Amino acid sequence: MDEKLMDQVMEEVLKKLNSGNTDVVKRKDAPVEEQKERTNKTFGANGITEFVGTAIGDTVGLVIANVDSELLASMNLDKSYRSIGIIGGRTGAGPQIMAADEAVKATNTEIIKIELPRDTKGGAGHGCLIIFGADDVSDARRAVEVVLDDLDRTFGDVYGNDAGHIELQYTARASKALAYTFGAKEGQAFGIIVGAPAAIGVVTADTALKAANVEVVSYSTPTNGNSFSNECTVTITGDSGAVRQAVLAAKDVGVKLLEALGGEAPSSTKPYI
Amino acid sequence: MDEKLMDQVMEEVLKKLNSGNTDVVKRKDAPVEEQKERTNKTFGANGITEFVGTAIGDTVGLVIANVDSELLASMNLDKSYRSIGIIGGRTGAGPQIMAADEAVKATNTEIIKIELPRDTKGGAGHGCLIIFGADDVSDARRAVEVVLDDLDRTFGDVYGNDAGHIELQYTARASKALAYTFGAKEGQAFGIIVGAPAAIGVVTADTALKAANVEVVSYSTPTNGNSFSNECTVTITGDSGAVRQAVLAAKDVGVKLLEALGGEAPSSTKPYI
Amino acid sequence: MDEKLMDQVMEEVLKKLNSGNTDVVKRKDAPVEEQKERTNKTFGANGITEFVGTAIGDTVGLVIANVDSELLASMNLDKSYRSIGIIGGRTGAGPQIMAADEAVKATNTEIIKIELPRDTKGGAGHGCLIIFGADDVSDARRAVEVVLDDLDRTFGDVYGNDAGHIELQYTARASKALAYTFGAKEGQAFGIIVGAPAAIGVVTADTALKAANVEVVSYSTPTNGNSFSNECTVTITGDSGAVRQAVLAAKDVGVKLLEALGGEAPSSTKPYI
Repeated sequence: MDEKLMDQVMEEVLKKLNSGNTDVVKRKDAPVEEQKERTNKTFGANGITEFVGTAIGDTVGLVIANVDSELLASMNLDKSYRSIGIIGGRTGAGPQIMAADEAVKATNTEIIKIELPRDTKGGAGHGCLIIFGADDVSDARRAVEVVLDDLDRTFGDVYGNDAGHIELQYTARASKALAYTFGAKEGQAFGIIVGAPAAIGVVTADTALKAANVEVVSYSTPTNGNSFSNECTVTITGDSGAVRQAVLAAKDVGVKLLEALGGEAPSSTKPYI
Repeated sequence: MDEKLMDQVMEEVLKKLNSGNTDVVKRKDAPVEEQKERTNKTFGANGITEFVGTAIGDTVGLVIANVDSELLASMNLDKSYRSIGIIGGRTGAGPQIMAADEAVKATNTEIIKIELPRDTKGGAGHGCLIIFGADDVSDARRAVEVVLDDLDRTFGDVYGNDAGHIELQYTARASKALAYTFGAKEGQAFGIIVGAPAAIGVVTADTALKAANVEVVSYSTPTNGNSFSNECTVTITGDSGAVRQAVLAAKDVGVKLLEALGGEAPSSTKPYI
Repeated sequence: MDEKLMDQVMEEVLKKLNSGNTDVVKRKDAPVEEQKERTNKTFGANGITEFVGTAIGDTVGLVIANVDSELLASMNLDKSYRSIGIIGGRTGAGPQIMAADEAVKATNTEIIKIELPRDTKGGAGHGCLIIFGADDVSDARRAVEVVLDDLDRTFGDVYGNDAGHIELQYTARASKALAYTFGAKEGQAFGIIVGAPAAIGVVTADTALKAANVEVVSYSTPTNGNSFSNECTVTITGDSGAVRQAVLAAKDVGVKLLEALGGEAPSSTKPYI
């Protein structure tokens, strides 16, 4: 095969490989129809009752109707429930926590554990493990479904390239998942600003705080609050308009810095803020 | 180059790239003959006496006949030995620890340190660093050789795809490496069940405990017992038949869940349980 | 497309992909001219004043002239400065710390924070976050520039392949960044020896200490001193000739071991020791 043709092929191959090779996520979930088919095929006759579904970020949703009592004792949960809902992903903590925040508002469940592994499949951030407790398994299942359905939205302001990612989250009214993870005050506006590599996260935090009249709720660095991820994370509260404005100002600066380091950094899905 | 031909090339390229792209391990070790040749070539005339060999999981086996005394003082080992054997891998902790458990049974050595880095080369789990102490370097070398030889077996029930892995280990009689790492009782049947992402590990733990009359020895989550890996790990003991049954039940459910999330999840080598 | 042609394409594609696929770094920085152009294009009219530049290891250099006072209170810095310089990279801690050590010698700045995330983009090591404090932002910017300019040098003795890396650093006169991170005594010769996977790092540490009359300053393992990276790191001091000799002896053994595990392990740039 002649050298020139090979170069041409390589150029195209690398272009196509790189276009999907962001630090953050590739949409893994097939269209609903297709996914249903795949799920049915896999679980077919001998379906596994614990399985609820999958979503972006290699996220899986599961339920256990009646947790083994010895396991329950080992799990060190904040409160014991026999029925639990489980959300776990390889990529993303913020998007799943935001979606879980909506889920506890919408269902009769409690957040009884959130842990952040160091993950993102070689990227700079976290994965997640979120556990809902419920008196009735149908409530736990409903919470898990709400999270899976909401993830396309909450991944909308995750911007990534090979060098890192910028993540923004915003809600007009924080609930228990955000209170659990970051110490958010329930019922108040709340914003999350993550920059990776962590150096960029210092600047995005500074930008957010200067852009509007907001207060710091938490500030985390790789070895102090984060799970050794290469991120700095600031969370903020205040008037809802101010929080939104601060988040958007941080996005502008953060995405530009990330793009200066690693090239185009598109949204993982579709911006929502 | 026309678009249609390029699409055809890309399809083939991606198919071939993905076929080898599991979360867990690709067999790196060449056939024995070939590997010996490579090793001889690399180390040729000026062989390095510390080198013993390599195996699956980017595992390397090494010995030091007489550790520098100042280093020994800094190493913070459980017990000082001048001769040490060293096993370290990028991918896998369970397989190497199981093999080390056999090695301490078979040789005149002790386990004096096991540490689990967060690794697997972008995957969801751990790497490992295992140190054997011995009075005689030939014993240390023998222990390292036993581990390297046993790894093909102990990787047999590691099932992986791009989204995570399920790992099962089983022994009828636990020894000192399992006691060191998990608090196993020596001489008793022992099983390890790992699920990644961690959400799946919660369900596999629950499945195992419900499937047979077994007891929990340890339960680890990403930030509580694991090194920020995206895994939940339960270890169990009991009657040897019950432990085996529990492990196999967890495998069935775990592999199905992992495959629902990320597609086919084959064994890294050949199942042994 | 016929099978034979496809195989030929695949062979070429894989060859080209693999040639750049080391565990450590690919040179990301384009030639100066080109990079300047890219930066100008990205930041164009609405330049972001915090941006200084980028370098190897997905390293970004930033400054903040006047850190928001609420952020400053949350940052938990060793000493409060209103002007800070920030260096952060996805790959490498040693190279950036060595360069920062030169920067504090050359500028009117202080090191006020160094944190090591677990990173290297799926590799075995760390990323970094380094913060300089200064009374004047021009001093902070100057320190950041010195680091970015020095990284090509300090990555010179980072040798890597798909299985891990060996890193060596040497200075005749340690300064405050090395004192901060490793407890180096200022003004004395200082060497860093890193081996990954960690098993190789045990042997390189032993080799260094036996090769010359040097003293251990620090010894770190995955879960004891390192941020769960798959590395063992020894740092040494002594007569400058002895330190250099110890470092070079460790390099010889370490690179041979790493190459026995994972094939050719070239320098990331150009050896400087």
